[in-house]
Amino acid sequence: MEQPVSGNTTGPVERDVGAQRRVVVAIKREIAAGVHAPGSRLPSTRALAAEWGLSRATVTAAFEQLAAEGYLETRAGARARVAAGLAQPKPAPETAPAARPTEISAYGRRLASASPIPWNAQPFALDFRYGELAGGDFPTLAWRRALANAATRRPARLRYGDPRGLPELRAALQGYLWRSRGLHCEADDIVVVNGSQQGLDLCARLLIDPGDRVVIEDPAYHLARQVFLAAGAELAPQLVDRGGMRTNALPPARLAFVTPSHQMPLGSILSATRRQELLAWAARNGAAIIEDDYDAEYRHDVGPVPPLRSLDQAGSVIYLGTVSKTLSPTLRLGYLVLPQGLREVFARAKRVTDRHAPELEQAALTELIANGTYERHVRRVRRRNGERRVALLQALRLHLGERVTISGTDAGLHVLVWINGLPQSREAELTERAAAASLGLYGVSGLYDQPDNRDRRAGLVIGYAALDEAQIIAGVERLDALLRELGA
Amino acid sequence: MEQPVSGNTTGPVERDVGAQRRVVVAIKREIAAGVHAPGSRLPSTRALAAEWGLSRATVTAAFEQLAAEGYLETRAGARARVAAGLAQPKPAPETAPAARPTEISAYGRRLASASPIPWNAQPFALDFRYGELAGGDFPTLAWRRALANAATRRPARLRYGDPRGLPELRAALQGYLWRSRGLHCEADDIVVVNGSQQGLDLCARLLIDPGDRVVIEDPAYHLARQVFLAAGAELAPQLVDRGGMRTNALPPARLAFVTPSHQMPLGSILSATRRQELLAWAARNGAAIIEDDYDAEYRHDVGPVPPLRSLDQAGSVIYLGTVSKTLSPTLRLGYLVLPQGLREVFARAKRVTDRHAPELEQAALTELIANGTYERHVRRVRRRNGERRVALLQALRLHLGERVTISGTDAGLHVLVWINGLPQSREAELTERAAAASLGLYGVSGLYDQPDNRDRRAGLVIGYAALDEAQIIAGVERLDALLRELGA
Repeated sequence: MEQPVSGNTTGPVERDVGAQRRVVVAIKREIAAGVHAPGSRLPSTRALAAEWGLSRATVTAAFEQLAAEGYLETRAGARARVAAGLAQPKPAPETAPAARPTEISAYGRRLASASPIPWNAQPFALDFRYGELAGGDFPTLAWRRALANAATRRPARLRYGDPRGLPELRAALQGYLWRSRGLHCEADDIVVVNGSQQGLDLCARLLIDPGDRVVIEDPAYHLARQVFLAAGAELAPQLVDRGGMRTNALPPARLAFVTPSHQMPLGSILSATRRQELLAWAARNGAAIIEDDYDAEYRHDVGPVPPLRSLDQAGSVIYLGTVSKTLSPTLRLGYLVLPQGLREVFARAKRVTDRHAPELEQAALTELIANGTYERHVRRVRRRNGERRVALLQALRLHLGERVTISGTDAGLHVLVWINGLPQSREAELTERAAAASLGLYGVSGLYDQPDNRDRRAGLVIGYAALDEAQIIAGVERLDALLRELGA
Repeated sequence: MEQPVSGNTTGPVERDVGAQRRVVVAIKREIAAGVHAPGSRLPSTRALAAEWGLSRATVTAAFEQLAAEGYLETRAGARARVAAGLAQPKPAPETAPAARPTEISAYGRRLASASPIPWNAQPFALDFRYGELAGGDFPTLAWRRALANAATRRPARLRYGDPRGLPELRAALQGYLWRSRGLHCEADDIVVVNGSQQGLDLCARLLIDPGDRVVIEDPAYHLARQVFLAAGAELAPQLVDRGGMRTNALPPARLAFVTPSHQMPLGSILSATRRQELLAWAARNGAAIIEDDYDAEYRHDVGPVPPLRSLDQAGSVIYLGTVSKTLSPTLRLGYLVLPQGLREVFARAKRVTDRHAPELEQAALTELIANGTYERHVRRVRRRNGERRVALLQALRLHLGERVTISGTDAGLHVLVWINGLPQSREAELTERAAAASLGLYGVSGLYDQPDNRDRRAGLVIGYAALDEAQIIAGVERLDALLRELGA
């Protein structure tokens, strides 16, 4: 391995690389087949070159390569030798004892035992899946320009960045959160993450150990539940009603997960009393609260609800934001706003986990926020989604009327549609029939902790942000027809 | 929360939003200050509007907002009431018992106890830090064009993607690995990750539990060691010599981490005998092997060494690749090539961890690989870095001659420079003096498991890919001067 300082830089480029590689492969094959025993000498490079019709330099280079890989031992002036001891430890594949399968960790086993979710399912012709956006709403030109600017401004030296994200993006987000959410924080409270899913995962890793209790809404966002279950948490689900998650019987826990501005999926706002109760509980228990503000930008009939973090005196609340609902879920950009006491350990975890979020995308988002494009875009998509919402509510009223009850319409990009005449037990029948007709419908019952959703009616989480008005109306008409088939 | 289907979409935009927000804030403040007791009635909206000089609609909208947030209870025809029970659970900040600090997990505590690494250090005027690239080597135009094409081809529907990465990128990588590394795999063996760091982290999470043993090279890549220590592993370091990591005394373990093509940092190639021993050990123990092929593209005096994975019969080897050394470390793009038995659990973990890698960057890389630009670029930067390497080796010979011994020059983007006349105990003195002179030098001793590096000499890991020839020569001259000051 050690070698004298040398200016020799003749690379393989200047030799017949293809022939050299074939020689290397051929000799390895011969060694493996036992043609050349360990310790035995190979023919001279001259003899092999003649035999194979190659230049001696090519064969010599192949031998050097084989020596570098440890197959041969070479010495100037002597014929190369097959490395002693090479073949002994090699298990012949036919007779070797069966290899033990690779064991996976407890974390991996918990993941493996979760119900599989088809991630590459094709979208239906009409698909009310929540969390998807219309491609036409994406600000393609502005994003392309911002990315091009970021790529052009590349620095003289490409180096790993700050694990918390670009300082200029964190400053831009600080201003944005203050303007849009009335949230005061320092830029150094912010860690840019690869979408809010990574934010949840970092919280789970850093705040709970296997067996710890986590308070979670019931029903809840399914990938939040999966993160905590994979981390080995014992879930303590708390029912959600019109005032958000009930807080009157919170057990001691390490962590609580809530969506206070617009409960996912039911749509209620966490009441002021419950906010106080939750914060007091966290302070008493040394628990952290994840405030997932996943669709903060979409308010329809009410003004923005101030974030829970604004009320937090004890430093319990971790605020989680994302651009997945305003720009695109495929960008994978989100951010945590941390209490001061957690800043350092989250930065360390982000670094060891994946160094930092990709920088070009961070720079592009910085530019859009800094020059006002992002907030103009948010206003535009808020208006656009308001139009879709009107179309959905009107179509539901026109076609389904009193047969359904709608909730969660104040905010966000989805509503909850309870089917008054269809028992919960028939929800799967409805969504399966819909799928067969290429209509994507998603039942609410799977988001509850227990199969019994406590509402006794079938319920649907209807996301509308990826559809245009005509598709929304056509989808509701199909839903109407399906419900008539089911007698509901 | 439930409300009749309604077409009412009058948003806050059409009211005096600023005034409304001020009313909301004022009333909350009054409630918090005890001006309005829980359950008590507020003045009528008419009276407040008159008092504050606002339209009644604005005050009514503010009340609706306060009701939605749970501060007020409103009923048509009656004056609004402060929510009953609102103030009771609120701890007065002055008298409340001190909040318990948020507890962090065992994982977080292990991270917190690791030595801090300054991630936002400014680069030195001349910096030999390994892992950084020259900005001028980045294919700005090609990357910008590929990104623009990807942004323009945005689909009709923006949806979460396959957690394993874009199918077209995985197909392109499959072909690239075959052409460049002679590595056969299926596209479905590949999971695209956010840089090789995330690949390591996923392996640690899925393959080891706290207390499990991990075989690791000694010395080793420091962020690999940190990942395993954070996961709670007990490290079993194995000394590295000219034949790579020694494999004659491997203890039972769940995982081994190796850099067989170019040991990081010493530069040796894992010998054929040791490859066989390592694979046999893994099969016997049900252990997995991470093959970190971090600088596979850079071979100078030898041809490419086939990956360990090519010899793997038992499905033990996880191959880890990256574009951090060919394009940029700031892109955060890498990939795992998994044994079949681990594909499913890694895909699940990637999904729960952060859904998937950002798609625009994946699409851009796909285009560059598919149209040949990537491989042309790799040849160009390989040549360019070969030139830098010649400059470095010549400068070292010219200025330092026999005072140093160089190893690891066959491959990669760094060499190891042993200072023959300087004991290991003075390595830190050298790097600190260099830092004071704005010369970035990095000692090898910190990469060993034990403070004693077993070579007794000071050693430097010299990365050269971010510097031009003049800088390299100037840096070596400064090193020469520093060594003379130290009497070495």
